[in-house]
Amino acid sequence: MLELIKLTHTNIYNIYYEDTDFSGFVYHANYLKFFERSRSDLMGISALKELFDAGYHFVVSKAVLDFKAPARFGEQIIVDTHAEFTRSPRVHIKHILKNSSQITLVIGEITLAMLDKHNKPARIPDNFLIYLKHKNNS
Amino acid sequence: MLELIKLTHTNIYNIYYEDTDFSGFVYHANYLKFFERSRSDLMGISALKELFDAGYHFVVSKAVLDFKAPARFGEQIIVDTHAEFTRSPRVHIKHILKNSSQITLVIGEITLAMLDKHNKPARIPDNFLIYLKHKNNS
Amino acid sequence: MLELIKLTHTNIYNIYYEDTDFSGFVYHANYLKFFERSRSDLMGISALKELFDAGYHFVVSKAVLDFKAPARFGEQIIVDTHAEFTRSPRVHIKHILKNSSQITLVIGEITLAMLDKHNKPARIPDNFLIYLKHKNNS
Amino acid sequence: MLELIKLTHTNIYNIYYEDTDFSGFVYHANYLKFFERSRSDLMGISALKELFDAGYHFVVSKAVLDFKAPARFGEQIIVDTHAEFTRSPRVHIKHILKNSSQITLVIGEITLAMLDKHNKPARIPDNFLIYLKHKNNS
Repeated sequence: MLELIKLTHTNIYNIYYEDTDFSGFVYHANYLKFFERSRSDLMGISALKELFDAGYHFVVSKAVLDFKAPARFGEQIIVDTHAEFTRSPRVHIKHILKNSSQITLVIGEITLAMLDKHNKPARIPDNFLIYLKHKNNS
Repeated sequence: MLELIKLTHTNIYNIYYEDTDFSGFVYHANYLKFFERSRSDLMGISALKELFDAGYHFVVSKAVLDFKAPARFGEQIIVDTHAEFTRSPRVHIKHILKNSSQITLVIGEITLAMLDKHNKPARIPDNFLIYLKHKNNS
Repeated sequence: MLELIKLTHTNIYNIYYEDTDFSGFVYHANYLKFFERSRSDLMGISALKELFDAGYHFVVSKAVLDFKAPARFGEQIIVDTHAEFTRSPRVHIKHILKNSSQITLVIGEITLAMLDKHNKPARIPDNFLIYLKHKNNS
Repeated sequence: MLELIKLTHTNIYNIYYEDTDFSGFVYHANYLKFFERSRSDLMGISALKELFDAGYHFVVSKAVLDFKAPARFGEQIIVDTHAEFTRSPRVHIKHILKNSSQITLVIGEITLAMLDKHNKPARIPDNFLIYLKHKNNS
């Protein structure tokens, strides 16, 4: 039986023009893009692609975003991602986005749901969980 | 003294390629764009521009997004926006996004904060509130 | 035999935060989004969806963008779209984006290619051309 | 007197959900984002930020995009960027985007224009050119 698998991952990003809006700061919706990149890297994008080709994909079912302070063009930001996987279709992910002075700018709590090819909720396939568990140990 | 001002507004959007991702549905972050367009139209984009030129702007301080069902390319979606303004810097907004069969797809609860030109929280200027109150009565 | 079909269409858009970057103007890549919306409306988005469901879709094979002057938050822009269709897989489209003073801001010349479900170039299906010809006459 | 400065730079990117559209491939406008990231890294994003703070910024004045083949979710892409700088306000940049099999997918030829704080064309400041020349030699 597969237990709770906890994974953490850290990404560093530059802020480019594409990320900003005319307020001078990162456009609020774009933080979700940094978060998607971060949890995709946590899981491994080629593993996600294989999962998709096998008929499974994750969708975001809930997002709670707490914007504490803005990031701006030319800054480097750090995203720490913490994920908890079980066999349940739901995955709980927490993203903490900080600037280079380690000030927390945005916190995102994301719930993913695994869907099958008919877009119905599905348990996470065992081989994907085994892969994640192995990733955890490495 | 200015009381609570409640405004509601409805927008209709087509879903284009730009809105979707390879899952076949709207990319989750892009719902925030429909919501921003909707509340900008609720307040009036030229009024927002004047506010900006006067040194004030709204930022999103919190967003809670509940994704119930997906929208897809070629669909028409309806966004009902409900906003509550007081003199407080914080504005509470609820967006309900439905498909053309009136099925709710996404609910967004957004808290805006008004900032001054130094990016400090500021009370919403009286003339903007009076403008909104008038908009409400019209 | 189907001749050259010429269609024109005009769209009006507001500029929102999502469209801009920290320079204060519309982010250059985002003009392509206004152009995609415009030519989708020219062709009719439900017709494009039917085409897609029948195994055909357009891709952009070439884009030439001439940025003459910027659009900014709160402005209204007008996009005039001119399209030329034949049975050839290639469609030639010209988008002229102006501000509300009729100053041309951006000109986009876009070549689309029709692909079949195997992503191979395909002649535009006759029923789609007939539909467009009818749209032209209406 | 400052001569022609030629710089080249290579970036590698993963393709995430955010980059794709429902056709299954990268949304055409998003290649411009990979190109912006690539030339910002070529010039150095902190140098661009200093330039901006000194009242200067680049805008895209022309873009010619040749889409030869699509990139898809989960792929790694490589962008080779070649830039030519002189004291002229105009900078010529060529981006060649390839997949991991070295197949060219998209070629972008971009002309940038340097603007001053009044959004008027300006010669590229000498200290920025000297910085670039030094970058070239290193």
